[in-house]
Amino acid sequence: MRIQLINPNTTRAFTERLQHSAQLIAAAGTEVFATQPRLGTPSVESHVDEAWASLGVIAQVQDGEANGVDAYVVACFGDTGVAAAREVARGPVIGMTEAALFSACLLGASFSIITLPPRTLIHARRVLNECGLQHRCAGLRAIDVQVDDCQEEDNAALYQALLDEAHAALAHDRCEVLILGCAGLSEMVEPLQQALGIPVIDGVCAALKMAEGLVAMGLKTSKHSSFDFPPRDLRAQWPGL
Amino acid sequence: MRIQLINPNTTRAFTERLQHSAQLIAAAGTEVFATQPRLGTPSVESHVDEAWASLGVIAQVQDGEANGVDAYVVACFGDTGVAAAREVARGPVIGMTEAALFSACLLGASFSIITLPPRTLIHARRVLNECGLQHRCAGLRAIDVQVDDCQEEDNAALYQALLDEAHAALAHDRCEVLILGCAGLSEMVEPLQQALGIPVIDGVCAALKMAEGLVAMGLKTSKHSSFDFPPRDLRAQWPGL
Amino acid sequence: MRIQLINPNTTRAFTERLQHSAQLIAAAGTEVFATQPRLGTPSVESHVDEAWASLGVIAQVQDGEANGVDAYVVACFGDTGVAAAREVARGPVIGMTEAALFSACLLGASFSIITLPPRTLIHARRVLNECGLQHRCAGLRAIDVQVDDCQEEDNAALYQALLDEAHAALAHDRCEVLILGCAGLSEMVEPLQQALGIPVIDGVCAALKMAEGLVAMGLKTSKHSSFDFPPRDLRAQWPGL
Amino acid sequence: MRIQLINPNTTRAFTERLQHSAQLIAAAGTEVFATQPRLGTPSVESHVDEAWASLGVIAQVQDGEANGVDAYVVACFGDTGVAAAREVARGPVIGMTEAALFSACLLGASFSIITLPPRTLIHARRVLNECGLQHRCAGLRAIDVQVDDCQEEDNAALYQALLDEAHAALAHDRCEVLILGCAGLSEMVEPLQQALGIPVIDGVCAALKMAEGLVAMGLKTSKHSSFDFPPRDLRAQWPGL
Amino acid sequence: MRIQLINPNTTRAFTERLQHSAQLIAAAGTEVFATQPRLGTPSVESHVDEAWASLGVIAQVQDGEANGVDAYVVACFGDTGVAAAREVARGPVIGMTEAALFSACLLGASFSIITLPPRTLIHARRVLNECGLQHRCAGLRAIDVQVDDCQEEDNAALYQALLDEAHAALAHDRCEVLILGCAGLSEMVEPLQQALGIPVIDGVCAALKMAEGLVAMGLKTSKHSSFDFPPRDLRAQWPGL
Amino acid sequence: MRIQLINPNTTRAFTERLQHSAQLIAAAGTEVFATQPRLGTPSVESHVDEAWASLGVIAQVQDGEANGVDAYVVACFGDTGVAAAREVARGPVIGMTEAALFSACLLGASFSIITLPPRTLIHARRVLNECGLQHRCAGLRAIDVQVDDCQEEDNAALYQALLDEAHAALAHDRCEVLILGCAGLSEMVEPLQQALGIPVIDGVCAALKMAEGLVAMGLKTSKHSSFDFPPRDLRAQWPGL
Repeated sequence: MRIQLINPNTTRAFTERLQHSAQLIAAAGTEVFATQPRLGTPSVESHVDEAWASLGVIAQVQDGEANGVDAYVVACFGDTGVAAAREVARGPVIGMTEAALFSACLLGASFSIITLPPRTLIHARRVLNECGLQHRCAGLRAIDVQVDDCQEEDNAALYQALLDEAHAALAHDRCEVLILGCAGLSEMVEPLQQALGIPVIDGVCAALKMAEGLVAMGLKTSKHSSFDFPPRDLRAQWPGL
Repeated sequence: MRIQLINPNTTRAFTERLQHSAQLIAAAGTEVFATQPRLGTPSVESHVDEAWASLGVIAQVQDGEANGVDAYVVACFGDTGVAAAREVARGPVIGMTEAALFSACLLGASFSIITLPPRTLIHARRVLNECGLQHRCAGLRAIDVQVDDCQEEDNAALYQALLDEAHAALAHDRCEVLILGCAGLSEMVEPLQQALGIPVIDGVCAALKMAEGLVAMGLKTSKHSSFDFPPRDLRAQWPGL
Repeated sequence: MRIQLINPNTTRAFTERLQHSAQLIAAAGTEVFATQPRLGTPSVESHVDEAWASLGVIAQVQDGEANGVDAYVVACFGDTGVAAAREVARGPVIGMTEAALFSACLLGASFSIITLPPRTLIHARRVLNECGLQHRCAGLRAIDVQVDDCQEEDNAALYQALLDEAHAALAHDRCEVLILGCAGLSEMVEPLQQALGIPVIDGVCAALKMAEGLVAMGLKTSKHSSFDFPPRDLRAQWPGL
Repeated sequence: MRIQLINPNTTRAFTERLQHSAQLIAAAGTEVFATQPRLGTPSVESHVDEAWASLGVIAQVQDGEANGVDAYVVACFGDTGVAAAREVARGPVIGMTEAALFSACLLGASFSIITLPPRTLIHARRVLNECGLQHRCAGLRAIDVQVDDCQEEDNAALYQALLDEAHAALAHDRCEVLILGCAGLSEMVEPLQQALGIPVIDGVCAALKMAEGLVAMGLKTSKHSSFDFPPRDLRAQWPGL
Repeated sequence: MRIQLINPNTTRAFTERLQHSAQLIAAAGTEVFATQPRLGTPSVESHVDEAWASLGVIAQVQDGEANGVDAYVVACFGDTGVAAAREVARGPVIGMTEAALFSACLLGASFSIITLPPRTLIHARRVLNECGLQHRCAGLRAIDVQVDDCQEEDNAALYQALLDEAHAALAHDRCEVLILGCAGLSEMVEPLQQALGIPVIDGVCAALKMAEGLVAMGLKTSKHSSFDFPPRDLRAQWPGL
Repeated sequence: MRIQLINPNTTRAFTERLQHSAQLIAAAGTEVFATQPRLGTPSVESHVDEAWASLGVIAQVQDGEANGVDAYVVACFGDTGVAAAREVARGPVIGMTEAALFSACLLGASFSIITLPPRTLIHARRVLNECGLQHRCAGLRAIDVQVDDCQEEDNAALYQALLDEAHAALAHDRCEVLILGCAGLSEMVEPLQQALGIPVIDGVCAALKMAEGLVAMGLKTSKHSSFDFPPRDLRAQWPGL
């Protein structure tokens, strides 16, 4: 089984961390490989970033289809480009946000989300609404940190900011599960879980395991109506993509 | 990894079919075993049946906890006893209905559900509401068949009834994914999928794969508030349970 | 007219208090009598407790049907077993929670609920969702007290905890009506009402009056589909029930 | 206990029928009396009618307050003027629509409403939304009949139209309870119930019994914020009102 | 194009301010004129006030229809009488509240509303629900000021109260747009906007521009069902109206 | 006042028709000019099309900002790229879908939408959900026609298909207003309105008039959080854009 982890941004260190953490969690027979776009944005922190990143997601899935990929994980909180990717792919495409939300619902009555930076709250809310899970969301919180900081090696400051906000979520939201609203934070899951005493979810890992499960069941993206193959391929317009 | 498939009813043939279909889909390192209650109801088709079946679900999870089980799948459309089971269990407990709903959302924009018999529509609707997915449900349909018929060997009539209703769902609901609202139908997934051309989901398999994924990530049921361990064990009151 | 008050737990003092407060409020021609299960849980504070208590509710309604009871009131916040009881009963079955919610809506634009202990908030929320009244609920609060304390004679501490939380609800939720989220507190209604200056509702009394009203109108539980008589009686499996 | 039935329109035959049917259902100690406005509209079938009728409702409650009335029932589907009446009254004010909706929820999982004429569907929907019960409403139907026809002695044609629509509701909506969306039809409840085999609810009777119950419990309209006494009385501007 | 600004209350100073601010914003070819009822209430601060004011709104629209008015703006937060006015009018009728809500949604992801006095929050919530915009409302706030104060010349105290509450909304609700929940405050828009740095919306101006737009497109109120012309005219009953 | 009409696709004939119909409806002092992207898709009929078109929308707004444009109208049903455009623009950005929905709500209690082709229903539903107007939508319908057909001169067949579907909407949805779910159909508004007898809304015109109104009031896009200016400009990566 081949599963492609799609980094929507162009930051190589981030792609490498995705690859690393995915390999730790992938099942024995699963080949996982992380890719990134040739052109695009170094991080996804706005609707304009999302527009640029979406093209890179589509291009990566097109390449994956040529390479016999069975399923895709889109590693961006906000699930950028997932709907378009579903049109291109035959197999399942899983966004890290929807995977995190659904996993959280299986483990507790409510969850809080901590995302970053604050202007991206609207992206998290969009997925929350699509998944119908507003009533299970005890709190939607943001810390005032740039996404780049998720992608750095030394992120003690980021950890502390997450921990502080998580304690606030536990106290005020009474959340039963915590969702980390940024890709590339899988190393923080275990220490946060120890500190908080509740399940902490990294959406990339959650999406990878859901992708494995759907492929094992032989399930593919429905081509009936909304996610049918796209009527045209416009990638040739942009040489470097 | 040990995963227990919980049959809430007392019908042995049904337990055996669960065991059979689960083994076909379980990952290499997963030990799956299906159990059933010592006392209870031969099928779950009413709120009263659910009340009796819930005790059996709790008792099975208690046994599982003593046997080092890592996660549980409750194999009853309506997710009978899942909330109580979450209190008893340390690891994840997955209902087949919630697993089916979440899987469907990863594969298409909308889904239809076909359950049986009509009086159990209220149970399906209850899970749909808890999961917040009414807006993704294109149709909630029932065929006028007893649950026992799901549990028989020769179920050509049941298949035909499902196929007819599924064609109606495709034509009138414009659903993009189909969910089978009864456990023990995994053999029908493939022929229905071939006939309909859209993904067809068996919730038991979906729940098993989600359980495997959560265990692989080291995630357990949150013990913060709603699903904390129960304040007392009353099983001793009922000798044969 | 015979109305049976169903105590889902096995605490006799609590049953006696139900009987006492119901007689004060019952209409001239109404015979009310409170019953309790032979086996079960001393209080209902978890989903597991609810599972055990549900059987006792069913058994009590079965006895009531044999005794010509016209309607039932289930005296447990969370309306434990009400759906199953509706299947067994011919006449109306009223949960104290739904009765409290509907009564509150007739007296003010919004209400707050104070229940106990915190882990049972999920049960209150379940009824709130079934009744569609989330938008009328100004606050859903819990005090950290065991249900047993509702059942004791000397409950000055409980009264003070309720009063403090009620003042917080009035100040922060701006609620217009207060609902007491525990059975057996009818004696506190009047002092709380005096202290707060807003209507305070005891769900057991509210349910009793609604039951009287429905019986007077000749209305019974609908047997069309969801609450049709159950397909089998399994009580014989459990001798002492 | 004194309960005033408020007919928002000026049709005397209708007031008399309210009085008649209320007396049949009122408890032993309840004095019920139906009143009507001095000025207003012969029936309430539009928003403009509602505007005129609201003044009459207010004026009747003002008179009732002077006469020591304990509670009020507003006998108009759409609950015309109920919010304003709550400001004027000390005791409870119950709209026939909200009472019908809440009663239906106590007897079945879903209900259908048949109102008239079609242009008043928006009034029924307004109350349905205020009560949050859209998810319990299996169908909102209208027959093309004027309200006047509800107010006539010989209404065999109206009965037949209701019966036909009710059969359609039963077949297509799968409703478990039926609500009659017009005051003054209490005589049709029993024959419809016999013909359909499901509970049929007349909102005026339902409201009367709820009013009795609230008064018995000593509950009054909350004067905290939304329904506080109105800041001025403008009735003197209109001599004949 | 003739657009009538309907002041639902009888306070002349308020009508004059409406006229003044409307003329500043009206398009070149638009004739705007503000009117007020002959009888009614000096301000609209309760449901009873709304009942009286609705008649005045209807009467003003009736006069407008006789005078060839193309569209109407109802200048009362809560949109008092708008539904009835739509029945009487041929052209569009726009409430200041709905216009403010829709405008806010075009300028930001969320908005807060500041209305007055607190007891009128229920009126704002009613329109919010009709427009389905609860999920876009970051905060619904009230200041404890009488409506009369909106109508005075010297309103520095009102401005300060609004400013303080607006700063609270910005800090705690994280609103992106602010709506002023009272007519006659158009002069405060600019200073508040300067102080806050986010768009501030006066619903009367918003409604006027929407009315101009609809008339320019030749669009009129739908007469199909809900807002069809009313079945009767009852104004003659009340000589002075 | 300068308002730019943004055609998200590359079809020149369509841009010209936008220009033509906008000039007919623009106010005297409004300069309107329609633009199209240099690169992109000939029509927007899928999520992949939307991804490509979004870049063109952003680029056009960037050009507009350099040219002193006061407001933008995005002429694509589904409001492709509107959120990203709001980040780039100082002034308001109005999507034709949201403008149509809000206008419809001002003219009737409910509306139906006819869009095309069926696979784009998901885009219409997305905007409907963002605007919270599912409860006002009587029907969401699609005709099986390619978007190109909206862009042709001779579209008698398209008109007939719309008319047939509109008659079905009127009969079965009981809609009070009709929304045309495709840009470039403004010429059909008047004949459809004549044939149906209810208001018919072209979203492009509605958006243009709302844009004029917001500019006249001096309102701009909120730069507080969600639509703040984007953190980087990546257009230089793609030379021809």
